Amino acid sequence: MSSVIAIDIGGTNFRVGLFSGDGTCRFIREEPTSQEGGREWMLERLVEQCAALRARAGSPVTACGISFGGPVNHARQLATSVHSPGWNAFPLAQWVRDNLQLRCEVENDANAGAIGEFRFGAGRGCQSIVYITLSTGVGSGVILDGKVLRGKDGMAGEFGHLPLSDSGIICSCGARGCLETLCSGTAIARVGRERACRVPEKAKRLMELSGGEAGKISAKSVLQAAAEGDPMATEILQETTQWLARGLLTLIRILNPDKIILGGGVALAGSVLLRPLSAHLQRLGSPIIGYSTQIVVAELGVNSALYGAAAIGLAMTQDEGQ
Amino acid sequence: MSSVIAIDIGGTNFRVGLFSGDGTCRFIREEPTSQEGGREWMLERLVEQCAALRARAGSPVTACGISFGGPVNHARQLATSVHSPGWNAFPLAQWVRDNLQLRCEVENDANAGAIGEFRFGAGRGCQSIVYITLSTGVGSGVILDGKVLRGKDGMAGEFGHLPLSDSGIICSCGARGCLETLCSGTAIARVGRERACRVPEKAKRLMELSGGEAGKISAKSVLQAAAEGDPMATEILQETTQWLARGLLTLIRILNPDKIILGGGVALAGSVLLRPLSAHLQRLGSPIIGYSTQIVVAELGVNSALYGAAAIGLAMTQDEGQ
Repeated sequence: MSSVIAIDIGGTNFRVGLFSGDGTCRFIREEPTSQEGGREWMLERLVEQCAALRARAGSPVTACGISFGGPVNHARQLATSVHSPGWNAFPLAQWVRDNLQLRCEVENDANAGAIGEFRFGAGRGCQSIVYITLSTGVGSGVILDGKVLRGKDGMAGEFGHLPLSDSGIICSCGARGCLETLCSGTAIARVGRERACRVPEKAKRLMELSGGEAGKISAKSVLQAAAEGDPMATEILQETTQWLARGLLTLIRILNPDKIILGGGVALAGSVLLRPLSAHLQRLGSPIIGYSTQIVVAELGVNSALYGAAAIGLAMTQDEGQ
Repeated sequence: MSSVIAIDIGGTNFRVGLFSGDGTCRFIREEPTSQEGGREWMLERLVEQCAALRARAGSPVTACGISFGGPVNHARQLATSVHSPGWNAFPLAQWVRDNLQLRCEVENDANAGAIGEFRFGAGRGCQSIVYITLSTGVGSGVILDGKVLRGKDGMAGEFGHLPLSDSGIICSCGARGCLETLCSGTAIARVGRERACRVPEKAKRLMELSGGEAGKISAKSVLQAAAEGDPMATEILQETTQWLARGLLTLIRILNPDKIILGGGVALAGSVLLRPLSAHLQRLGSPIIGYSTQIVVAELGVNSALYGAAAIGLAMTQDEGQ
């Protein structure tokens, strides 16, 4: 049976995987990404890793799906990164075809995560899902009737940039009060640091978890302190999940999908986030306009996008077979 | 050539139309709806009107599409009204088949409006549109890739119930701060009356247009006063269009459709609404996340839903022909 290669290029880590033609995952490898190395470093690693995967495959590798952690022009297959040098509308799929002699398709990581969960994870058997990645930033991918929703300008599914608040801070996109500024990992960490500086007597546990430096309070330390029952951390999550609930209810009102699947580091914290989120959803909702959209955590954990890249590779193989 | 009958049952007026098989509108008739007459009255009128249309047609009438101004369970073809007696999960399409010997399909008025504008109006040639009706309430219909988006529970496209504000009033749906409570015709009229009572010295023109009674200030009088340049009315529209802009930008962030088409009595006021709306959209948007979604007024005016009913009837005829 032939195989496909899956690649997930992220700002912190990158992952490669080998999948059988029937979708079975045979191998996954994760490595840290060199930010300063930029594109050149990453492409060298891809050459090495793909050679190793091909040697391991023992059968022909027919296609390569790539999840890229940055804006992707899907129609033209161009990858851009604002964090890592050398990725400026780079024709990544073409490069793979030319240099690795593999058919290739590139997708941004939020869409790839949606595809991965839809095919292999919490979205199996659904018609329509929204996958949300709650991480440093907030991204999302929408799948309706089994197809990625792209929109007129390829700008559909910009959940992180829902305009929720008039009084919020300015977002990296230049607008004020985007959802991302209110409930991303970055936002949770920022509120944690502000609160610890303002009310230090209540921030003892948060400070301990951050090596005694308020400036080092991270989303992870807030989530851990809240899981232990720390009042200040619990209050911070109460506030951030209120905004998240408003965003999710907005998605439900517009799309009413089968499931909303929460992925990314913040979501993987699980019930410490889901419990207040669910209470806010209950409070914000209507007693009349019911819905059965389920809100669940991603089943594939950190590998949603890698599995999505595999699904993209597998779909290319099937297209070829027809 | 065969013909189809189109029916638009609204709370204030109802309309019937006769359309040729090629989509040409041959005849439209509008009458006031008797609210106290309820279902019985309406069904009697339908029998009479359909007989008259058939006599007029001069060729076989093959199908009937109906737009209904209330919740429709599309899968089961049941119509419900909270305003008019006798409509409680009523099997309207079945009734038409049994009593008028016509194939029939029923759609709620927001979806029918979307279908009408998509096929015959401002959405011609588009892949995806959102049609919004700004009237007593606020409804919407979403068409993606030519298909009405229904959602898991038939609850997609509930634009009027986007949860925009924590401090707004309670909506008819029981939730607080829904878009409908902030920018429907009812909301514009309510703010007009409140403002006129609070600052009567600035409400002279609004009072004149309402026969001297603050309690009779309507959305129509606010829109007219604003069109004349009245400062208080202009301020009211500034506020309501700010909420509407937030809702529209939310739709664009999630769906990025080709067009958003504004229909209903409030939207038909035109530039007095569109000008401040467009300024708010500009202010709320991002300099980085561009979009080319156009925001336009419905081309079919009060007849969007009737044309949608015709399109539904025509589609049934084509299905039969295949």
